[in-house]
Amino acid sequence: MLHPDTEMLEHSVCLAAVSLLGVLEQAYFSLQVISARRKFSVAPPSTSGPAEFERVYRAQANCSEYFPLFITVLWLAGLFFSQGLSSFCGLLYLYGRYLYFRGYCQSSQSRLGPMYFSAQVLWTLVGFSGLGILCSLSRLYLGLDLNRLALSSLGLSEDEM
Amino acid sequence: MLHPDTEMLEHSVCLAAVSLLGVLEQAYFSLQVISARRKFSVAPPSTSGPAEFERVYRAQANCSEYFPLFITVLWLAGLFFSQGLSSFCGLLYLYGRYLYFRGYCQSSQSRLGPMYFSAQVLWTLVGFSGLGILCSLSRLYLGLDLNRLALSSLGLSEDEM
Amino acid sequence: MLHPDTEMLEHSVCLAAVSLLGVLEQAYFSLQVISARRKFSVAPPSTSGPAEFERVYRAQANCSEYFPLFITVLWLAGLFFSQGLSSFCGLLYLYGRYLYFRGYCQSSQSRLGPMYFSAQVLWTLVGFSGLGILCSLSRLYLGLDLNRLALSSLGLSEDEM
Repeated sequence: MLHPDTEMLEHSVCLAAVSLLGVLEQAYFSLQVISARRKFSVAPPSTSGPAEFERVYRAQANCSEYFPLFITVLWLAGLFFSQGLSSFCGLLYLYGRYLYFRGYCQSSQSRLGPMYFSAQVLWTLVGFSGLGILCSLSRLYLGLDLNRLALSSLGLSEDEM
Repeated sequence: MLHPDTEMLEHSVCLAAVSLLGVLEQAYFSLQVISARRKFSVAPPSTSGPAEFERVYRAQANCSEYFPLFITVLWLAGLFFSQGLSSFCGLLYLYGRYLYFRGYCQSSQSRLGPMYFSAQVLWTLVGFSGLGILCSLSRLYLGLDLNRLALSSLGLSEDEM
Repeated sequence: MLHPDTEMLEHSVCLAAVSLLGVLEQAYFSLQVISARRKFSVAPPSTSGPAEFERVYRAQANCSEYFPLFITVLWLAGLFFSQGLSSFCGLLYLYGRYLYFRGYCQSSQSRLGPMYFSAQVLWTLVGFSGLGILCSLSRLYLGLDLNRLALSSLGLSEDEM
């Protein structure tokens, strides 16, 4: 049952933990929609009803829509840039989404703060991914190690890190 | 054309096959929506129409919404716990989703059985992922090999497995 | 900060770059929906309004729905078949989706051409994935190297490639 590529898995286990947490959060949002359907008597397949119900429904739909984008940049940033930073941003994002969902259930207005926060965290992950991929590409196709270059321009060698 | 990291790929080829099957299933659902649009004359961008159409549409939308969650836990469970068990659960889930889609097309009521079944399979995959990630984390950060611990508490050594 | 499994990452850096581009495209579509909400005064959580707004909204929703399918087959085809071909198809798909979005914003009719194009590219990626997975499965479980078989039937050895 022990994997041969244990090393690879160790470099992604925190990303895996954050991803699983994300799945659990989405499950929680889905359960909230089911309970809102009962509370406001909106039977499937309908998705329209009182504004309170529609807000819960839209909050969940919006989080679902962003979930694949989040998972993609979480792993890109984690594998190509830094697992630690990426996992930390992942936790922030999931917390932001939780506040967004709770805010949206109360009023459209209260979703805005957490929405901007989540968006910022997502853009940070996009930035990390871009940096990491650019470094890998330049090392691979230009033979240029940007990482080492940056260190040496700071007067540091890799071993001192 | 042969990959250097063949070993890693061999540890995920069944997960890959199940994932591809999942994509094909989603494609099938999408084609069913297109044909329902024609049958009930609901031209895009509208998504509302007779209840028969709305059920087909919601069935597909619901499966789409869960697809990223399914792929995520399939791979987490497969890489961190067991490829065999995870792939088997994956096949069950896809079969449950097929029954769900067919049931929902007939009536809202007939979707419920397969819906609960799919949800149970998904929770099983979540459980497997959680166990696998917990084992990896404890081995990595606590130096504790839960897997070996469980075996030795049963009076077994790894070689006997 | 250098990864030990650099080799694995080098075999996926182009897939990573295309994935990131895909995320950026989805972000662009989302921003377009936000600006359409302002233009046509459709406040969340509502998603219905003038046909112009509904087309922008549906264009984005449709692309979001396909995004997880796209990412899945991009990586399956890239890891099990060929990173180069898969990344190239990925770029074509993203370009097709861009044309689709712009077309749909103008009229339902103008979305059709790019929609068929994107679908064809997606089916190509599905085909590549299927071939690659089949080769890996047959090598693994039947001991049959289809790749080598095809080459030798052409009178070539692997080294000549």
